[in-house]
Amino acid sequence: MRVAFIGLGRMGSGMARNLLRAGHQVDVFNRSAEKAEALASEGARIAGSPADACRDCHAAITMLADDAAVESVVFGSRGVASTLEQDAVHISSSTISTALARRLDVEHLKRGQRYLSAPVFGRPEAAESKKLIVVAAGPDETVERCDALFDAIGRQTFVAGREPWQANAVKLCGNFMIAAMLEAFGEAFATLRKGAIDPHLFLNVMNTLFASPVYANYGRIVADREFEPAGFALKLGLKDARLVLAAAEECESPMPLASLIHDHLLAGMAQGQAEMDWSSVAKVVARNSGLEG
Amino acid sequence: MRVAFIGLGRMGSGMARNLLRAGHQVDVFNRSAEKAEALASEGARIAGSPADACRDCHAAITMLADDAAVESVVFGSRGVASTLEQDAVHISSSTISTALARRLDVEHLKRGQRYLSAPVFGRPEAAESKKLIVVAAGPDETVERCDALFDAIGRQTFVAGREPWQANAVKLCGNFMIAAMLEAFGEAFATLRKGAIDPHLFLNVMNTLFASPVYANYGRIVADREFEPAGFALKLGLKDARLVLAAAEECESPMPLASLIHDHLLAGMAQGQAEMDWSSVAKVVARNSGLEG
Amino acid sequence: MRVAFIGLGRMGSGMARNLLRAGHQVDVFNRSAEKAEALASEGARIAGSPADACRDCHAAITMLADDAAVESVVFGSRGVASTLEQDAVHISSSTISTALARRLDVEHLKRGQRYLSAPVFGRPEAAESKKLIVVAAGPDETVERCDALFDAIGRQTFVAGREPWQANAVKLCGNFMIAAMLEAFGEAFATLRKGAIDPHLFLNVMNTLFASPVYANYGRIVADREFEPAGFALKLGLKDARLVLAAAEECESPMPLASLIHDHLLAGMAQGQAEMDWSSVAKVVARNSGLEG
Amino acid sequence: MRVAFIGLGRMGSGMARNLLRAGHQVDVFNRSAEKAEALASEGARIAGSPADACRDCHAAITMLADDAAVESVVFGSRGVASTLEQDAVHISSSTISTALARRLDVEHLKRGQRYLSAPVFGRPEAAESKKLIVVAAGPDETVERCDALFDAIGRQTFVAGREPWQANAVKLCGNFMIAAMLEAFGEAFATLRKGAIDPHLFLNVMNTLFASPVYANYGRIVADREFEPAGFALKLGLKDARLVLAAAEECESPMPLASLIHDHLLAGMAQGQAEMDWSSVAKVVARNSGLEG
Repeated sequence: MRVAFIGLGRMGSGMARNLLRAGHQVDVFNRSAEKAEALASEGARIAGSPADACRDCHAAITMLADDAAVESVVFGSRGVASTLEQDAVHISSSTISTALARRLDVEHLKRGQRYLSAPVFGRPEAAESKKLIVVAAGPDETVERCDALFDAIGRQTFVAGREPWQANAVKLCGNFMIAAMLEAFGEAFATLRKGAIDPHLFLNVMNTLFASPVYANYGRIVADREFEPAGFALKLGLKDARLVLAAAEECESPMPLASLIHDHLLAGMAQGQAEMDWSSVAKVVARNSGLEG
Repeated sequence: MRVAFIGLGRMGSGMARNLLRAGHQVDVFNRSAEKAEALASEGARIAGSPADACRDCHAAITMLADDAAVESVVFGSRGVASTLEQDAVHISSSTISTALARRLDVEHLKRGQRYLSAPVFGRPEAAESKKLIVVAAGPDETVERCDALFDAIGRQTFVAGREPWQANAVKLCGNFMIAAMLEAFGEAFATLRKGAIDPHLFLNVMNTLFASPVYANYGRIVADREFEPAGFALKLGLKDARLVLAAAEECESPMPLASLIHDHLLAGMAQGQAEMDWSSVAKVVARNSGLEG
Repeated sequence: MRVAFIGLGRMGSGMARNLLRAGHQVDVFNRSAEKAEALASEGARIAGSPADACRDCHAAITMLADDAAVESVVFGSRGVASTLEQDAVHISSSTISTALARRLDVEHLKRGQRYLSAPVFGRPEAAESKKLIVVAAGPDETVERCDALFDAIGRQTFVAGREPWQANAVKLCGNFMIAAMLEAFGEAFATLRKGAIDPHLFLNVMNTLFASPVYANYGRIVADREFEPAGFALKLGLKDARLVLAAAEECESPMPLASLIHDHLLAGMAQGQAEMDWSSVAKVVARNSGLEG
Repeated sequence: MRVAFIGLGRMGSGMARNLLRAGHQVDVFNRSAEKAEALASEGARIAGSPADACRDCHAAITMLADDAAVESVVFGSRGVASTLEQDAVHISSSTISTALARRLDVEHLKRGQRYLSAPVFGRPEAAESKKLIVVAAGPDETVERCDALFDAIGRQTFVAGREPWQANAVKLCGNFMIAAMLEAFGEAFATLRKGAIDPHLFLNVMNTLFASPVYANYGRIVADREFEPAGFALKLGLKDARLVLAAAEECESPMPLASLIHDHLLAGMAQGQAEMDWSSVAKVVARNSGLEG
């Protein structure tokens, strides 16, 4: 397939590379050109704008930081929507709001274009090594048409429903599950530290109990208090907390734990942790216990 | 070793049986006699009281429902403390308060007896099949002396520190980690149900993401809303939430997520769920979203 | 002064009437015409659109339900901004977001127009009887110019700062203070009801303790559980909770009590209480205690 | 009447003095003798122990710091219960747990003695000037018998019910209402400070809105951040938060706002504010917003 790929950040670069490896023709666009050039040597064609990249493609994948970036890349002048062909599909893999997913669906439909949400779980290493989890949603036929692309970037694809925003809801709830674990680790470690109990002892017990790589990875970061460099920045975690609360509000479903997490991440922002890993929510919790964060 | 074992509930029976299988001499006592008799056929000697069971033993293990039961069994007339020999060890494996652990330590010491806390992680099946995780704490020499007993009942033993109450703090924080996961599942499932998204789809994604048997087990219960019969009753979960908050208060370490969990479990009590599984905290959350619980 | 008044709901009608009583010339516009006609007999001129009302006026006051209504009335075709003269002032008295207040400020300035935020505290009866509390903000000179208008509609005017959005922040924080009282009453009454203690006894004690008409008024509603008809609808209370959280997020200032209130009001929405008084947050709390709401 | 008065702290001294002024014969006991001597010059008889003070009295009033002090003074050797006559009344005015109130009721009854709970609202100045609010509970006949005593110490007496603990529940819920206001003030002031809005402006608006002396008093303390000397120490506020949560747990009635307050007061303890005024909960909130507390 001929694919446009917009957004070559730490996640997008790996995804685009795996599309190339799978034999697809990939036209890339990135705001800063260097990242695009790195991919050119692997066979990607560099486009001068999102519109250029999308001309004549079967599918356009966007992998961008937030709602504002997606809106600008899609609806801005020389944006995706301006050249995407009839029946071609825009696949948004960014972690965006359910509201924007609904708007993208409506706007593309108006133009005779198709739209899918297909956010992914996994860190940059997973993107690079084709180990992402893909959660797609949209009309059955459109999802099927893109199966080969999902197979190229991830190890497994789940279909969340026929309405694209449903995939975003699943992604946001999944990130909420991770954030809940971070908050819980933060509180447990703070209490145990005040009780002069070795955090690594507790981490070992939790690793035996949960036997989960996610617990092992984040638990180690919190136990060691190594919040830099960030795997996923706190400011992005705050954005996701805001988005899951917005989705919950649309569904009229209160999520008090999501509110608690949001408030602690916001306290992290106020205390200068925007660029630290989002697991540094544990610093906020520790300071409330009178500990050095 | 010659071991007294007091408390043959669903957990205690399996633990006592594994002590017998490992070749230890076990004197058992249980308030209702039937459960003791089941073990007699496997070699246990039935005692008429905790005091009887403890006479001449090297170690006495108590596995009881709560602080009140432990206090009564240890300090009551014909209790453990009345006959336990000098230098013999009382091992409390019950999930009790850190405050009671400290009191047990002091009181046994006064009598020239030894005390260890050694609570366990695992459900009755794990107790039966010697797969418990044991978290012990107390003076090094005393812990070492009991290693063979821990090996007999669990798959792995962790030492939390030299003060017995530290093992109880670790146990309570571990249960808090599980409860945090239950609350998070409850909120995510409620929001997704209101968005007409299949809970099993979400569960599959979470199982791929976390790859943890604990998530798989509890996630399935919540997705299926099969809260009966209880693996671990909500009223016991509420007790543990109360105990972790009490431990946190002693350490001057606020745990807002533990407070949230406590309040939701208490709402579950108020709504008639005392005997359901503690994962039915998800029912409380769902009702707040206007769903049938 | 010649004043345009847009939005003749329960609050706006009383405010416009008091402007007429104070001798100002008032051009009114309301989406549904009946309410405008009622004021015509008292001397108001009826305008066919916001634009018509604003032509040649010195000040245009908008008193509308929410951000969307204000945006449409101001920036829509035949909106306020299209005809307001250079140096004439738009005064927004609606409870709107701090973000919209900033946008209004910028947009009016671009057009050479002035902008003030001047939200009010008080129920419709207070609007009718000129007992509102006015909180204004904006450049000193502009505020002074409008003093006579504020005097005409309220019993006291406070100036929150030189940036219009600051008045909205004060208004939102004030509503948050009231909501905090409602949540507290809800929790106290639920616990006391479960203890078979007469809510009116408690209310009498609180009236003696706080000696506040706001406590007396809302406390009675909650004690009597007379949530209909609504003085201030729960759905509007939820909107305000959302807005105060948005303002707090802009300021990077977590407000966990505002989050708690938001989540309980949202639960009220989910449980069919959108049109009840916002004090029916107490029903949500009561149901969590296992009581009939 | 002949009255024993135990506990001459800042509250108790004023109360005992007003009993003397009303013509009652008062036998006083205080752990440290100086405070008793101050009252001797006003006609009080100094007793050597609680038991001495209670011999031949009609009523014994205890006004002590917490549950432990009451238990020791009542049930200790030379305690109240040891000499209180048949049908004489023990009136506990301390802010104690509902559980201890129930125990006092049972234990006094066993001895043929009577028991009332009669906690009070008001600061030391109010105790001195006979302006306390008394909330009494117990059997009608016993309450009536003590009416003259309540009239002597307070400006108004409320009867909460026939079971003594109900008065304690009302007192604890009343303190909770004040704490809720403190938390709300803390959050509002933090957000407004970050928005560069003058806290005194906001306080003035709130004083006009709520028109409550309690808001005026505490609002000023928080606006000025004058948390020392304490009117009511944070460590005592934390105790009361714990007690209202315990009462709520007995009633199976979750109080999430009480939990939030508890956690913030506990954070205040952890951050060295035990002896500051409990309104310094606002410091905890401010620090979470990245402000100097």
